[in-house]
Amino acid sequence: MAIVLGPNRYGKAETRLLRVVRDTERHTLRDLNVSTSLVGDFAAAHVVGDQAHVLPTDTQKNAVFALARRIGVGEIEEFGLVLARHFVERTASVTGAEVRIEEHGWQRIVTESSPGGHDHAFTRSGQEVRTTDVVLGPDGAHVVSGLKDLVVLKSTGSEFSGFLVDELTTLSETHDRVLATALTARWTYAADAAVPDGVDWAASYAGIRSALLQRFADLHSLALQQSLWEMGRAVLEAHPEVGSIELVAPNIHHVAVDLGPFGLDNPGEVFHVTDRPYGLIEVTVERDGRD
Amino acid sequence: MAIVLGPNRYGKAETRLLRVVRDTERHTLRDLNVSTSLVGDFAAAHVVGDQAHVLPTDTQKNAVFALARRIGVGEIEEFGLVLARHFVERTASVTGAEVRIEEHGWQRIVTESSPGGHDHAFTRSGQEVRTTDVVLGPDGAHVVSGLKDLVVLKSTGSEFSGFLVDELTTLSETHDRVLATALTARWTYAADAAVPDGVDWAASYAGIRSALLQRFADLHSLALQQSLWEMGRAVLEAHPEVGSIELVAPNIHHVAVDLGPFGLDNPGEVFHVTDRPYGLIEVTVERDGRD
Amino acid sequence: MAIVLGPNRYGKAETRLLRVVRDTERHTLRDLNVSTSLVGDFAAAHVVGDQAHVLPTDTQKNAVFALARRIGVGEIEEFGLVLARHFVERTASVTGAEVRIEEHGWQRIVTESSPGGHDHAFTRSGQEVRTTDVVLGPDGAHVVSGLKDLVVLKSTGSEFSGFLVDELTTLSETHDRVLATALTARWTYAADAAVPDGVDWAASYAGIRSALLQRFADLHSLALQQSLWEMGRAVLEAHPEVGSIELVAPNIHHVAVDLGPFGLDNPGEVFHVTDRPYGLIEVTVERDGRD
Amino acid sequence: MAIVLGPNRYGKAETRLLRVVRDTERHTLRDLNVSTSLVGDFAAAHVVGDQAHVLPTDTQKNAVFALARRIGVGEIEEFGLVLARHFVERTASVTGAEVRIEEHGWQRIVTESSPGGHDHAFTRSGQEVRTTDVVLGPDGAHVVSGLKDLVVLKSTGSEFSGFLVDELTTLSETHDRVLATALTARWTYAADAAVPDGVDWAASYAGIRSALLQRFADLHSLALQQSLWEMGRAVLEAHPEVGSIELVAPNIHHVAVDLGPFGLDNPGEVFHVTDRPYGLIEVTVERDGRD
Repeated sequence: MAIVLGPNRYGKAETRLLRVVRDTERHTLRDLNVSTSLVGDFAAAHVVGDQAHVLPTDTQKNAVFALARRIGVGEIEEFGLVLARHFVERTASVTGAEVRIEEHGWQRIVTESSPGGHDHAFTRSGQEVRTTDVVLGPDGAHVVSGLKDLVVLKSTGSEFSGFLVDELTTLSETHDRVLATALTARWTYAADAAVPDGVDWAASYAGIRSALLQRFADLHSLALQQSLWEMGRAVLEAHPEVGSIELVAPNIHHVAVDLGPFGLDNPGEVFHVTDRPYGLIEVTVERDGRD
Repeated sequence: MAIVLGPNRYGKAETRLLRVVRDTERHTLRDLNVSTSLVGDFAAAHVVGDQAHVLPTDTQKNAVFALARRIGVGEIEEFGLVLARHFVERTASVTGAEVRIEEHGWQRIVTESSPGGHDHAFTRSGQEVRTTDVVLGPDGAHVVSGLKDLVVLKSTGSEFSGFLVDELTTLSETHDRVLATALTARWTYAADAAVPDGVDWAASYAGIRSALLQRFADLHSLALQQSLWEMGRAVLEAHPEVGSIELVAPNIHHVAVDLGPFGLDNPGEVFHVTDRPYGLIEVTVERDGRD
Repeated sequence: MAIVLGPNRYGKAETRLLRVVRDTERHTLRDLNVSTSLVGDFAAAHVVGDQAHVLPTDTQKNAVFALARRIGVGEIEEFGLVLARHFVERTASVTGAEVRIEEHGWQRIVTESSPGGHDHAFTRSGQEVRTTDVVLGPDGAHVVSGLKDLVVLKSTGSEFSGFLVDELTTLSETHDRVLATALTARWTYAADAAVPDGVDWAASYAGIRSALLQRFADLHSLALQQSLWEMGRAVLEAHPEVGSIELVAPNIHHVAVDLGPFGLDNPGEVFHVTDRPYGLIEVTVERDGRD
Repeated sequence: MAIVLGPNRYGKAETRLLRVVRDTERHTLRDLNVSTSLVGDFAAAHVVGDQAHVLPTDTQKNAVFALARRIGVGEIEEFGLVLARHFVERTASVTGAEVRIEEHGWQRIVTESSPGGHDHAFTRSGQEVRTTDVVLGPDGAHVVSGLKDLVVLKSTGSEFSGFLVDELTTLSETHDRVLATALTARWTYAADAAVPDGVDWAASYAGIRSALLQRFADLHSLALQQSLWEMGRAVLEAHPEVGSIELVAPNIHHVAVDLGPFGLDNPGEVFHVTDRPYGLIEVTVERDGRD
């Protein structure tokens, strides 16, 4: 069998862009980490080293900055679509583009002279990031948005019991434990995927994030699997624009410390937080009839 | 010259403790990373391998958990003092102890059924951590509290000009730049250092954090050095319980992108955020007459 | 459309195992990071919270340790197959398993009394890790092995020129640059994928790693794409047991510093190593006629 | 009490420099991470925002690159001294400088056509880094060199017993355990500290590293404290140029897994490697009569 070039792509990863909107004295920020990747007719670049069809990754970085100035940065889904179309529409050798964007949030500093928040001074909102992954190809645009590192915890209202026991099982059942995770969620936009610009991206994101948090908080959990299923279901019920949602959740184990050797009980008050290993639960919730 | 044992200490680093206070249905959390370190009469452990005077680091970890249950975890300075005294007062070979604690914040999830915040469901507040470093020795207790990874940014109101120019200087002056840092602050408690329990730790922390943020936001900055000086000064003016404050601030460079090659101007709107290298400014502000 | 449970799986990630082989005084080490993940009939666990079919992730961790003792740890591909079969064959609700293993290397410390290397004292070999990903399902076992974080650099013998230039391109051509990457490689084992135990895993790994390094070193590179293609081709030519290979390579940019402002030239001697953004090249090399 | 400016300094951290020596076709590399910090007459920069005495941190970065070209990069101690003197001798407002350098090692790729190692193709040696910290002030130059992240492990020949037992102690004694650490070492150069250029830095480093490893390997260890003491002592005995050495060693706990519940013994073969918490041992070994 001959040896051949298989799937390939290339791009510029992690271009860190701060876009300041300063039309008025009250500035707003878009703080992004942008990665672009192109597919197309690049066989010669690999096989004979001919770069004539290759738009440099340095140029991809320039495009991020230039378009941020020329067109501006709206919601990350919009900016991702702008970038993807820029590459596919303007470069003959490029047949598809993927743009992944992470957005870091900022909030205004409140001071005595600025009770409504300062015009141009901010603090980072936290480690949680909003994400999008825009793929543009011959069949149109696909947008998968999400969030990651949303750390949540319930100090009660969580059980794990009735599980399968084999000869290697030593875990005890519990009817009251701490449940914690650093959630990653990724949801696909369903309605007319080729022209998704009709979605109100900001409202959709805010609503989905809120639905995830509320369901996590309010559900009496019999397992992290159940919590994730219910959280995904809540999103799909409230957001017809979403086709499916994937949730990836490390189980950040909080082990109740056995204080018996010290003559103390431990009624769910003292926990040792462990790093590794950790449970890892992955669940997709989708609409029936979709591929 | 003979070869001798010099300064030495040992302990257990990074015991991750979650303490849930569940006296009522409305739980509260203390999420800590505790490191303990002991000094004392440990020469034999080193020189002849005799461990008779050595309290195992595993026991130090147990003490963190046992005291968290028996006495509870108040403000981190209180818990640090409890731990340090436990080791020094109960173990003859131990003459001093250092307890370093990092605290991660949590906030209640707000849901439709819990508009005031859920009783037992929380999200992590962010990457910023509150810190304390309690040192207990023959001369009493010293408490240095602080915070780290408080990320702040001003999108205008910051200059850097009039600096020294030598033959290797290529930097241009600027009268309008982005100023950003991930602040570390450490302040010493002054009044009667041997008996510092009189301080209202929570109020002191909240006030200092607020003073740092407000001064950063409101000052028109001529240099990061000036901002830090003014921030430290604001803390000392408002907080007589503080003796000195040390501020360590990486200058997170936001470089205005030159868009001229693309026929575009850049009126302070498009910035490239760089990782390394970074400026690093370290400033201590103190009261005159102190050592 | 109804809302339904889609693809799901769960497992225990990052169980850190050290297996010491001490049959003789000359010990050997297997230092592994093992992640297991199960698929099967887990709908009830999600939808109604019934865990009767769920083998706890804690039990999966126990299995790693118990099998490491009972059967021993050979090459990581063997151990992965043992683990995957353990779960699928012994648990009725489990229809498939994925086992991912990372191995950290160790080398013997050489001392005056042990010129051939110490019997039981070792140093870590470096950040490079050997990897495998074993998937066992109804259609048999699939093994994808690899390595990651293999950092390589050429200080000359690398060009980048003749590339596509558009109105956003500012990059200059170069005929002598530094080429560096932190390579990730993943290759599939081809021959009779359902019964892959016939492969000499250790020899295959060593040969592939050597082929990658040699081709990287000896090729005069016209682009990182070309280097990766040639490296992959070298592997497939020399290793009939490999069906395809995927190479993922961040381009660790080494920017020649412009020393002209200081009256100095820079004949390829002084480089600034940047972190972000970075080029990212992804290439698969495969055999013609495969799916 | 008045509020005053206390100790302060500023600089450029983590300038990443690759210096290629290409005098012949056989290249050599110096891969450094350089941080510089200046002290001097900078009160006005803080208190009134006057930068007239402040050499920009950007210029400090330029100096790293320019001196790497003009003078070259020898051993990191030499380059640190060159940099420190550059700042102190040429800038009137600068009274002292600290230069910290980390060096990453590279080794030549061996290929069939280059059995002695390739002329210009290399692999990173590992995560271990060589370090130096050069401080130049009114009293001359002080050099503290070292290494960090040297990961070592003994699979037997290590005990921990006879320790102090109090009412919170649950640890069992062991006469055969795994001992592992990621060593940080820092040693001071003694002879005529103000003119330390007479030291053969490369030979000193190689000898100290070897002495640390050999003593770690050959000592039957009764405690990590004892190992560190003996390792430090071995360095001082063999290296008169060293005045003192500080060793910081996290105890990377390898916990023998209890396999009894599964009907298996565990004769020192199966270990769980934990991340946190970890013991942390800090020891200085010095010459009697020194301050």
